Amino acid sequence: MPDGAVAPLGVALVGYGYWGPNLLRNYMELPGVTVRSVCDRRPEVLQKAQTRYPSVTVTVDLADVLADDDVDAVVIATPVRTHFPIAMAALEAGKHVFVEKPITDDSLHARRLVDLAADRSLVLMVGHTFVFSPPVRRVKELIDAGELGDIYFVTTQRVNLGLHQKDVSVIWDLAPHDLSILYYWLDETAESVTVMSRACIRADIPDVAFINLRFASGVVAEIQASWLSPVKLRRTIVVGSKKMLVYDDTESVEKVKIYDHGVDFKDPTDFGEFQLSYRTGDIVAPKIPGIEPLWLEAQHFIESVRTGDPPVTDGWAGLRVVASLEAAQDSLVRGGTQAIITPDLAALSEGAA
Amino acid sequence: MPDGAVAPLGVALVGYGYWGPNLLRNYMELPGVTVRSVCDRRPEVLQKAQTRYPSVTVTVDLADVLADDDVDAVVIATPVRTHFPIAMAALEAGKHVFVEKPITDDSLHARRLVDLAADRSLVLMVGHTFVFSPPVRRVKELIDAGELGDIYFVTTQRVNLGLHQKDVSVIWDLAPHDLSILYYWLDETAESVTVMSRACIRADIPDVAFINLRFASGVVAEIQASWLSPVKLRRTIVVGSKKMLVYDDTESVEKVKIYDHGVDFKDPTDFGEFQLSYRTGDIVAPKIPGIEPLWLEAQHFIESVRTGDPPVTDGWAGLRVVASLEAAQDSLVRGGTQAIITPDLAALSEGAA
Amino acid sequence: MPDGAVAPLGVALVGYGYWGPNLLRNYMELPGVTVRSVCDRRPEVLQKAQTRYPSVTVTVDLADVLADDDVDAVVIATPVRTHFPIAMAALEAGKHVFVEKPITDDSLHARRLVDLAADRSLVLMVGHTFVFSPPVRRVKELIDAGELGDIYFVTTQRVNLGLHQKDVSVIWDLAPHDLSILYYWLDETAESVTVMSRACIRADIPDVAFINLRFASGVVAEIQASWLSPVKLRRTIVVGSKKMLVYDDTESVEKVKIYDHGVDFKDPTDFGEFQLSYRTGDIVAPKIPGIEPLWLEAQHFIESVRTGDPPVTDGWAGLRVVASLEAAQDSLVRGGTQAIITPDLAALSEGAA
Amino acid sequence: MPDGAVAPLGVALVGYGYWGPNLLRNYMELPGVTVRSVCDRRPEVLQKAQTRYPSVTVTVDLADVLADDDVDAVVIATPVRTHFPIAMAALEAGKHVFVEKPITDDSLHARRLVDLAADRSLVLMVGHTFVFSPPVRRVKELIDAGELGDIYFVTTQRVNLGLHQKDVSVIWDLAPHDLSILYYWLDETAESVTVMSRACIRADIPDVAFINLRFASGVVAEIQASWLSPVKLRRTIVVGSKKMLVYDDTESVEKVKIYDHGVDFKDPTDFGEFQLSYRTGDIVAPKIPGIEPLWLEAQHFIESVRTGDPPVTDGWAGLRVVASLEAAQDSLVRGGTQAIITPDLAALSEGAA
Repeated sequence: MPDGAVAPLGVALVGYGYWGPNLLRNYMELPGVTVRSVCDRRPEVLQKAQTRYPSVTVTVDLADVLADDDVDAVVIATPVRTHFPIAMAALEAGKHVFVEKPITDDSLHARRLVDLAADRSLVLMVGHTFVFSPPVRRVKELIDAGELGDIYFVTTQRVNLGLHQKDVSVIWDLAPHDLSILYYWLDETAESVTVMSRACIRADIPDVAFINLRFASGVVAEIQASWLSPVKLRRTIVVGSKKMLVYDDTESVEKVKIYDHGVDFKDPTDFGEFQLSYRTGDIVAPKIPGIEPLWLEAQHFIESVRTGDPPVTDGWAGLRVVASLEAAQDSLVRGGTQAIITPDLAALSEGAA
Repeated sequence: MPDGAVAPLGVALVGYGYWGPNLLRNYMELPGVTVRSVCDRRPEVLQKAQTRYPSVTVTVDLADVLADDDVDAVVIATPVRTHFPIAMAALEAGKHVFVEKPITDDSLHARRLVDLAADRSLVLMVGHTFVFSPPVRRVKELIDAGELGDIYFVTTQRVNLGLHQKDVSVIWDLAPHDLSILYYWLDETAESVTVMSRACIRADIPDVAFINLRFASGVVAEIQASWLSPVKLRRTIVVGSKKMLVYDDTESVEKVKIYDHGVDFKDPTDFGEFQLSYRTGDIVAPKIPGIEPLWLEAQHFIESVRTGDPPVTDGWAGLRVVASLEAAQDSLVRGGTQAIITPDLAALSEGAA
Repeated sequence: MPDGAVAPLGVALVGYGYWGPNLLRNYMELPGVTVRSVCDRRPEVLQKAQTRYPSVTVTVDLADVLADDDVDAVVIATPVRTHFPIAMAALEAGKHVFVEKPITDDSLHARRLVDLAADRSLVLMVGHTFVFSPPVRRVKELIDAGELGDIYFVTTQRVNLGLHQKDVSVIWDLAPHDLSILYYWLDETAESVTVMSRACIRADIPDVAFINLRFASGVVAEIQASWLSPVKLRRTIVVGSKKMLVYDDTESVEKVKIYDHGVDFKDPTDFGEFQLSYRTGDIVAPKIPGIEPLWLEAQHFIESVRTGDPPVTDGWAGLRVVASLEAAQDSLVRGGTQAIITPDLAALSEGAA
Repeated sequence: MPDGAVAPLGVALVGYGYWGPNLLRNYMELPGVTVRSVCDRRPEVLQKAQTRYPSVTVTVDLADVLADDDVDAVVIATPVRTHFPIAMAALEAGKHVFVEKPITDDSLHARRLVDLAADRSLVLMVGHTFVFSPPVRRVKELIDAGELGDIYFVTTQRVNLGLHQKDVSVIWDLAPHDLSILYYWLDETAESVTVMSRACIRADIPDVAFINLRFASGVVAEIQASWLSPVKLRRTIVVGSKKMLVYDDTESVEKVKIYDHGVDFKDPTDFGEFQLSYRTGDIVAPKIPGIEPLWLEAQHFIESVRTGDPPVTDGWAGLRVVASLEAAQDSLVRGGTQAIITPDLAALSEGAA
């Protein structure tokens, strides 16, 4: 290789099921990346990968991947319960790791991944893909620029008909999206969560849930998640002291609408009357570029590996979401009482172990 | 009066503020009804009523109304805190009573009205107007006919920008609508309620609330209520085991849409696999007549007075809603913990008093 | 009357059918105006007016109105075929005249009204109410400010189910709205018109029409008008060289949306290739005040009477619309061939008569 | 090959530009079909086809395709002006032919293809893909079943921003879709057409057109076509004497909505009054299967080749659309006058030649 040229990064994909092909397609086309291998326990799915991408090595054995010195980074898209052991093995083998969401099914495991990656100075990134979605990014910019003022509350609906998961509730299936978006926007993890849910179709697996979150800053939020809805809704409302917005991911064009609406509060008059006035101004749907979030996510991972800068959706981000899901599960099991979200406690107890 | 003719019913309206004129307009045009008087403490608003309807007597003194033997029924549209004393006085004077929602601001008071009306064999009706709204009626027919199957859950949104009330929270202002609709549809009162809310604009008056309800039948429901929303939403989703529906009161034409959608559950196969199949069929927006709910409500009250049959929205219905609001308030005050709804306990303790 | 005080203007309304009550309500509340009388041939409708507004004199005889020296202006809302004789009589009696649209059913008659009003220095205004509608005004401001650039074309749909008129086609019933809007926006009268229509329900009365207009400036426009549509559409699209907009009068909030979209045209390259690039930017729904157009229209008429300034929708504006409707009718009768619009010829031939 | 087995049909694709890859993908997966070769003049695009489908032979020479005895059918997706010579050559070589829309750019050429295919007993099919679209099919079923009653009129909008074509007007680019749909639904070709259009961006190429059609049955129709619209509209309204429907191809779920609306016409009463009553009933959005039209189109072509039955979109269908486009062009050139559509005259004059 000539001086000054940058060697391509070697990437391996572990897990070629529902989501893996989407990841593979993006990594195949990413400049400066060479996909070296695809690993899955099922030979028949490896065959599909091989046919589509003849240049890639396929294997049923994770050890093959980890033993390959030209593999710099491992991308994991296996069932959730296997995220932890595979990611641990990859980190221990000195590989940077990208793992699909949720990062693990246990916050203690997530903490161990975070610590190991830190020890080895390896990148650990979780696939909170919505954080790379252009409309979500745009909302983040608006919030950070103070355009909305202080955030009062957020409501979000993620409902449609299907698909029931066999082993996880609608909370673990759908809420990670909204939790990751909320925490990204607000730069804050919820303090507590209260859940009401029902298992309508299968006795043991909640398929509708109302997840209420409270933040130290005063923000409250609600996530409605359901696999049982006549209509598909992907609508988030963010209400701030200056402006309000609606982010509707089912819209093809006007995904984000900013409302120059608000309540102006005047001081009490002599008569002690509170004076409120309602402001309704223009409504703006900013142009949102139509770039595929997965592409931006893959770029970001590769850039983190190259630069060593922590990714936006690092292991801590993954841990915060998992700790929140655990607390939600806790609230649900205890009949809808409030549960405290403790990513730091998780960290402490793990640290003590 | 000739034999067989029916004497017109004499009606008096107490309270001619924001809502009273709407009631008066309907009662003025109702066949078989004579509006005899309008009572309000403010002479200037009485002047308006007099100008518009010269035939009606106006008075600032409730005693005038109650002393008029030709007044058979009193319609009360005063501030909530005065509902109880005015309704008590009217019942004691032997008048049938229609009172705006919520029936009282205290469930014990509501129970006393219920008992007094029963003792005197007088009609006591509360103005849960949405129960008389044609789309709400249509949904009731669908549920009662079993078209939706078993009801799994209901979500409803009642949000828009404004109007902040000075003395009641968004819960007492907006939730009575949805509680009265839910209890009418389900023929069941919620067992418990959990509330998350925030007072964004004024320190002491919640203006956004997520109200989660649980019913003994297993149904769960959520009411989102807010005076702070960029968009006006009046959307209710009802999910049943056979069909699902959306009732959107902001739609001008397709207010109710019935989705022949559902999840069919097959028995586990030999391999222990659960089999779910998703059914998406036709979507039907039934024709909904455009009759004014207030007109139907007024008709229903007059008919109850004439026949002695209890109205659909009788004092008990009013009591159930007030008890639910009290429990919601209770949950809110105790930091969002679950509160039990006890209309019957309210009844008992009152009975014991 | 004290010095400096302005005497109220005396107004009479002629015609109290479908539309008259709306006009009366507005004029009753207009400061500086006294409605002196309402005239209609039908005593039973006069009775209604009298009951609602006891202060107003009612009469079946137009002569009573015209003989009243305190009547400064006459507002005419009678059937179209009577507009001309009533307006002529009023002008001859020295009254200012407001007449509903279309101004007459014959352009020669319209021209005679225009000339007579000019001779007598009286205000002649036609009820092109949409010209006073806030969204239409807002679009006019945008066009005049050059925000849209050169206007390329306009399409408009005014369709819904009903109401078939007994004596006029859908063209005379609905197109006046769009013609008056178009001519107001473009400051230009169409040169020619081509119509395709069908009389679906009654053999002799077209109830659907596609009206194509061509302007000297190059602008083309289409008006779709129908009493037979499953959905109500009131949508106008204006495409300019810089921006484009949609004006949808059925929207409750976002009645006007401005699209920062366009086609940028680059000069041919060396290879003679035309280069077009498509620009899609932000979409803005400006705040539109919710003022009733009728109120603004009535204000404008009164102001014209007071100041002597010609109203925006003067007799010429009425004439241009009627001449266009006649040409449309002409095109229709001659099998859809192009018909020239000749408000000026109408003027000339009338002048020659 | 064993007795009774059916030999796979050999197919060749000519033209691998914008649309060809979609056709190739479908034919590759069609049971009973072997794609033998792909032909294009550009080696670089052939390279792409080869990489994706290594089993297919690629060639720049049409003669190679036509000389291959194992090629039973040729699928043509080249620029319009080359449709005729390629299709002629293929038919003369004894191949069945599928050709993209419009079938040719000249109705005489279309007629020659029709005649040659008939002489040689070969299938000639044109790619009017929308005829195979499930919502269009569903509307056809409704019309044929008489559910809509007699058809009164049809309006359709096919507008959005871009893409300007270099060599054909918006009429030739977009109207073939709607003409093919209309003629399929109505089983009737328009008699005459009137066009108003404007070339906004390039002096010589109309980019907005209002195309009015009249049918012998009395049906009138309008096609709005434009490359210059702020919003994408794909909406067709069909109004019949019994019901009405809206087909909106931009809707993801409710693509077809059937309105049980109509006008009931009663005989004149004694007083000579016409009595109309408006009926607005339920609105139904039937379930529409989500099958790719291209797949159904390819299946249909192969089945026609196997059975010898003429395809729904045969050469005559292609000819009728081209003759209509020619008449539209004629109307446009002659300033928007009515032009007669003469597919049969085209046939006659060609027959006489």
